[in-house]
Amino acid sequence: MVKWIGLVALAGMLWSAPACAEDGYDLWLRYRASPATAAQAAVATGVVRDERDPTIDLAAAELARGLSGLTGRSVGESAIGDGSVVIGTPRSPRIAALRLPLEGLGREGYVLRSATIDGRRVTVVAANAPVGVLYGSFRLLRTLQTGSSIAALNVRDRPKLDLRLLNHWDNPDRYVERGYAGRSLWDWQKLPGFADPRYTEYARANASVGINGTVLNNVNASADMLTPAFLPKIETLAGIFRPWGIKVYLSARFSAPIEVGGLKTADPLDPQVAAWWKAKADEIYARIPDFGGFLVKANSEGQPGPGDYHRSHAEGANMLAAALKPHGGVVMWRAFVYASEKPEDRVRQAYSEFAPLDGKFADNVIVQVKNGAIDFQPREPFHQLFGAMPRTPLMMEVQITKEYLGFATHLAYLGTMWEEVLKSDTYRPRAGTTVADTLERPVRPGAPTGIAGVANIGTDRNWSGSQFDQANWYAFGRLAWDPQGSAGEIARDWAAMTWSPDPAVVAPVTAMMLRSREAVVDYMMPLGLNHLFATGHHYGPGPWVNDLAREDWNPTYFHKADRSGIGFDRTRTGSDAVSQYAPALTRTWGDPKRVPEKLLLWFHHVSWDRRMESGRTLWEELVAHYDHGVAEVAAMQEQWAALEGKVDPQRFAEVTQFLAIQRGEAQWWRDASIAYFAEVSGRPLPAGTVPPPQPLAYYKAIRTPYAPGNGK
Amino acid sequence: MVKWIGLVALAGMLWSAPACAEDGYDLWLRYRASPATAAQAAVATGVVRDERDPTIDLAAAELARGLSGLTGRSVGESAIGDGSVVIGTPRSPRIAALRLPLEGLGREGYVLRSATIDGRRVTVVAANAPVGVLYGSFRLLRTLQTGSSIAALNVRDRPKLDLRLLNHWDNPDRYVERGYAGRSLWDWQKLPGFADPRYTEYARANASVGINGTVLNNVNASADMLTPAFLPKIETLAGIFRPWGIKVYLSARFSAPIEVGGLKTADPLDPQVAAWWKAKADEIYARIPDFGGFLVKANSEGQPGPGDYHRSHAEGANMLAAALKPHGGVVMWRAFVYASEKPEDRVRQAYSEFAPLDGKFADNVIVQVKNGAIDFQPREPFHQLFGAMPRTPLMMEVQITKEYLGFATHLAYLGTMWEEVLKSDTYRPRAGTTVADTLERPVRPGAPTGIAGVANIGTDRNWSGSQFDQANWYAFGRLAWDPQGSAGEIARDWAAMTWSPDPAVVAPVTAMMLRSREAVVDYMMPLGLNHLFATGHHYGPGPWVNDLAREDWNPTYFHKADRSGIGFDRTRTGSDAVSQYAPALTRTWGDPKRVPEKLLLWFHHVSWDRRMESGRTLWEELVAHYDHGVAEVAAMQEQWAALEGKVDPQRFAEVTQFLAIQRGEAQWWRDASIAYFAEVSGRPLPAGTVPPPQPLAYYKAIRTPYAPGNGK
Repeated sequence: MVKWIGLVALAGMLWSAPACAEDGYDLWLRYRASPATAAQAAVATGVVRDERDPTIDLAAAELARGLSGLTGRSVGESAIGDGSVVIGTPRSPRIAALRLPLEGLGREGYVLRSATIDGRRVTVVAANAPVGVLYGSFRLLRTLQTGSSIAALNVRDRPKLDLRLLNHWDNPDRYVERGYAGRSLWDWQKLPGFADPRYTEYARANASVGINGTVLNNVNASADMLTPAFLPKIETLAGIFRPWGIKVYLSARFSAPIEVGGLKTADPLDPQVAAWWKAKADEIYARIPDFGGFLVKANSEGQPGPGDYHRSHAEGANMLAAALKPHGGVVMWRAFVYASEKPEDRVRQAYSEFAPLDGKFADNVIVQVKNGAIDFQPREPFHQLFGAMPRTPLMMEVQITKEYLGFATHLAYLGTMWEEVLKSDTYRPRAGTTVADTLERPVRPGAPTGIAGVANIGTDRNWSGSQFDQANWYAFGRLAWDPQGSAGEIARDWAAMTWSPDPAVVAPVTAMMLRSREAVVDYMMPLGLNHLFATGHHYGPGPWVNDLAREDWNPTYFHKADRSGIGFDRTRTGSDAVSQYAPALTRTWGDPKRVPEKLLLWFHHVSWDRRMESGRTLWEELVAHYDHGVAEVAAMQEQWAALEGKVDPQRFAEVTQFLAIQRGEAQWWRDASIAYFAEVSGRPLPAGTVPPPQPLAYYKAIRTPYAPGNGK
Repeated sequence: MVKWIGLVALAGMLWSAPACAEDGYDLWLRYRASPATAAQAAVATGVVRDERDPTIDLAAAELARGLSGLTGRSVGESAIGDGSVVIGTPRSPRIAALRLPLEGLGREGYVLRSATIDGRRVTVVAANAPVGVLYGSFRLLRTLQTGSSIAALNVRDRPKLDLRLLNHWDNPDRYVERGYAGRSLWDWQKLPGFADPRYTEYARANASVGINGTVLNNVNASADMLTPAFLPKIETLAGIFRPWGIKVYLSARFSAPIEVGGLKTADPLDPQVAAWWKAKADEIYARIPDFGGFLVKANSEGQPGPGDYHRSHAEGANMLAAALKPHGGVVMWRAFVYASEKPEDRVRQAYSEFAPLDGKFADNVIVQVKNGAIDFQPREPFHQLFGAMPRTPLMMEVQITKEYLGFATHLAYLGTMWEEVLKSDTYRPRAGTTVADTLERPVRPGAPTGIAGVANIGTDRNWSGSQFDQANWYAFGRLAWDPQGSAGEIARDWAAMTWSPDPAVVAPVTAMMLRSREAVVDYMMPLGLNHLFATGHHYGPGPWVNDLAREDWNPTYFHKADRSGIGFDRTRTGSDAVSQYAPALTRTWGDPKRVPEKLLLWFHHVSWDRRMESGRTLWEELVAHYDHGVAEVAAMQEQWAALEGKVDPQRFAEVTQFLAIQRGEAQWWRDASIAYFAEVSGRPLPAGTVPPPQPLAYYKAIRTPYAPGNGK
């Protein structure tokens, strides 16, 4: 009898899925049942839709998957009844009859509404287009995942930016520049023949946070990506991404007409060059009718560009834009330029070069500006171009991958960093105009808006190299959707979805996240210091480095420490970069007494003995920040340790080990930096300071040639 | 009420594992219940052991995991009863009392026996040492996984070779030379702080097939692997692998004393050099007391070696061996050498250089010889060194990664290829002495024996780049354990464990595997042709290539086709490499009438018009083989398609897509090769042959610069 039952049960198990460890692969879409979520999700009894559409199919399947997971029972598509989740566009008569306020929501916005249809209490997910239905479905699931009720829903939302893009710095050999999460997801060797299921999961995760485009390849681009050998592969990816509302873009190498086109020049004013790009665009669109466009890094760090032919960035961008225009594509032209020929302060150069071009770009060009003027440092003031080109669409570029914030092993939630930039007041055209505002407001009706994040995604099982780095992918998507969003709220949502909606988990996880970025600033580069990294890979401290080919690659260029003081004078007595900001900011930030201390050494060279708000000297304050940064990591370790048993063991162990690595590396940063600045300043350590355990020479001698992500 | 039950059920689910797709991660250790396996496994009620030992802990846990999976119910450790699986060594009184025939089984052998203990019917897994218990436990599980009964067990087994090693061609930056499965598993950046759970899974999978050692780094070695920066990382891996019976080895760069030791020379007879290596060995063993030893590629393809100082391979190897000797380590010295200065046939050179050194090596040196004299081609005759150095331990090196058999996407089961070599008669010292025999018989009592396989493992979720390439890892382990084993039986076991024990699955999967390697030979390089690959990456055909720096890198060197004929004359009228074999073979293989046709062009240059056994001319026969190879892939596609619904959908789809890629590439090989040989021979296509769809120039123009694995 026992045997017989066993066999019957087994017959049903044959194709059942096996147990599988919590390894982070599921991201924030785990859909695990918990008492909190199940109680809320229990009201959902089935999914109802009238429309057949690939994207609505995905929305319905996602709701079925999510509701089944969250309730712990099978919830599928069904006929309408009490508790149904009814999804669709006004093409569905049931949706149309509700006369929901869909106007002004565009294709991507949605309405979530508790309603009654034919006497049944239902939850409606409605939108003008299928992709809005998909976004609304993910929003509904998020509501449940975070333990909220859907019993009296009334949500109306739309994204505030048009282009919400990932930029992959992925090379065709699958090396990822500044990648700390394995190799490129794009398996070019097996494409187009093999459609790795992971491509679908990637698109799904992006769609769940509203990301609607992806630049597949590195801005340090290979022209080979534009060749017939690659286009069918790219077409396959585009086809997989399309129903998830995600367009494909490519980084275009400006000299491609020479390298793969057989021309003698890439001069943007040469008719043959323009014709080559036009034909190339036509070739791409024949395969990918919704191709998004090109991203271009030109005349920057050795990349080719219109400057090679004495043409302006506008001339270069507009030529490409003309090729894309008939197809509806855009050119995203990066403003990250600095030239070794010019002795000008590197912080000034993008503004100097681009601000005069305001109004000169074609209407399907958008200039892509990094959040700050250096390069994704742990803290930078917002880029002075935001608000400074009122006739030119600007999009912001942030770096999700943590090139400068500890690679994959340091816990550093970037939501707060981006929020700091987005909420910065540009004073342009007037006080109260934040960076987010400048991004959201089209410079003319129909002009594109957008944001791009340099992806932290690779083949690692957990996607981003660590469990907590998933939060940065997530937060980027959420802030791209709503740049006014709260980093704290986003962290809470992520923690609930990714770890557990149990408040005993959400609260400490969120607290760790919210303190984490400032901890990195403190143990790496407090008080406005920046770019003090070891050469090339940027792994570990290198404030002493002074031997690089370009002056403005050297840490000593950035901190300018000597016996008397430290900091980069960017006031009128120095480079005067501060004058590139609006006058109100020039006055505040240009005044060492009024500038926030966290930006002090960015704008000012000051004495080691300067008295700080705390009453300490600058030297004492600097050391205190380093110590505080290390202490913060220790505090995060304690917070995490208390979660043992409240989160699954595999991810718990991984985070525990990563925090220990971070602790050790924070200590390394602190010790090496203090040893160095003590020598440069000629000052003794402040009383009570624990001396670095090794002499400065020890830290200088550390070599880590195999640190990942170093550009090739 | 419903709600209340729901919440109670949910409370239990909170930490339960979610469903997870069948993606190949579980390898042949899936332990899924099926009627066939469950019926056999049902007799096992619990696991009993008396000993506390890390390895016996693993054996007990593995049995619990396996039996639970195979029966579909929870089977754990328990007190003895009917159906217990009792495991241990004679240190356990219950085991000792059984007086099992453990003599002669060494540390690694085991006995499986159905027995009665205290009146209970039990199954016993016994061994002299814990690692034997572990191997025996995996053997017991295999018996159940393949649907066999354990009701009347009487198995006694031990491995026939001492060293059963994987060689990882992994660089410190995680690039894998000739790797088609992602990056190196060894995450040096995060080691030693992060012990990726995958390291444990890797060790477990190896232990399950009896692999007992791993060379962590590429034979084209970086000296950095021997530095204090890496040794703690290696120590961590060794600690994880140890309880699984796996020792760690390193590839040693011969010039390390210069590169990381600060010496001016690496001359093996220089006392400072010897002292440096001795100190280095001491340093390693202080961290890893059971470190296995060094693998060395010396004076081969640009690697440094004793020849740089006019010393012999024996002098180089013996110097290293002296450093390892006090600790019990071995030196594995590769015989894969060929020098561009010498115009000698590349096939001859290893024998010419090594055979005279017989008897000159220290007793902890073992010479590692590839299965054939060229380089892991789809078919080679066995290496003439096997049996030719009776006073020198030789181990065989095979390549599990498919550098020359279609990378990850071609289904090519290598078990049959290795079996062909292992069962080849060396006629040394007399007829009937197979290569396997020469490997198994120690050249003196206590002399080491062994085999090494160049790993096909990487970070890809399925470990080996494809589902079917897992079979090659598996088959290597099984043949390393028993070189007399049957590739067909091994394929059947793997198919049952990996896909399903259902005979309706096992039979066609096994049939596909057993025909697959000959299919590759046919569509790439039939009749003894070899090394006709595109340059560098070896992806795709390049029989026309004739522009490489070294003559013996060029395909034209290997096939020597011209108007009159094709093939490499290795008889007395040519290079006379055939005389390096035993006289009986020299006679047979040296005679174009007696040599097996599958080796014809390896040993002979013959006319296109030569009449073959089939009655066809050689030219017709060659074309027929190419066509047959493509047809075989089509046949595999058909066999696989019929399995839809019998295997899980994700893996089914992946294999389906890979077979389609293989079909396309087989066609490419066939078309390009026929187009080329038609032109070289000046002959029309045989009647009825489908002409290549493109002219030869088309195939010659194909460039695939990003094909993976190309050496850096």
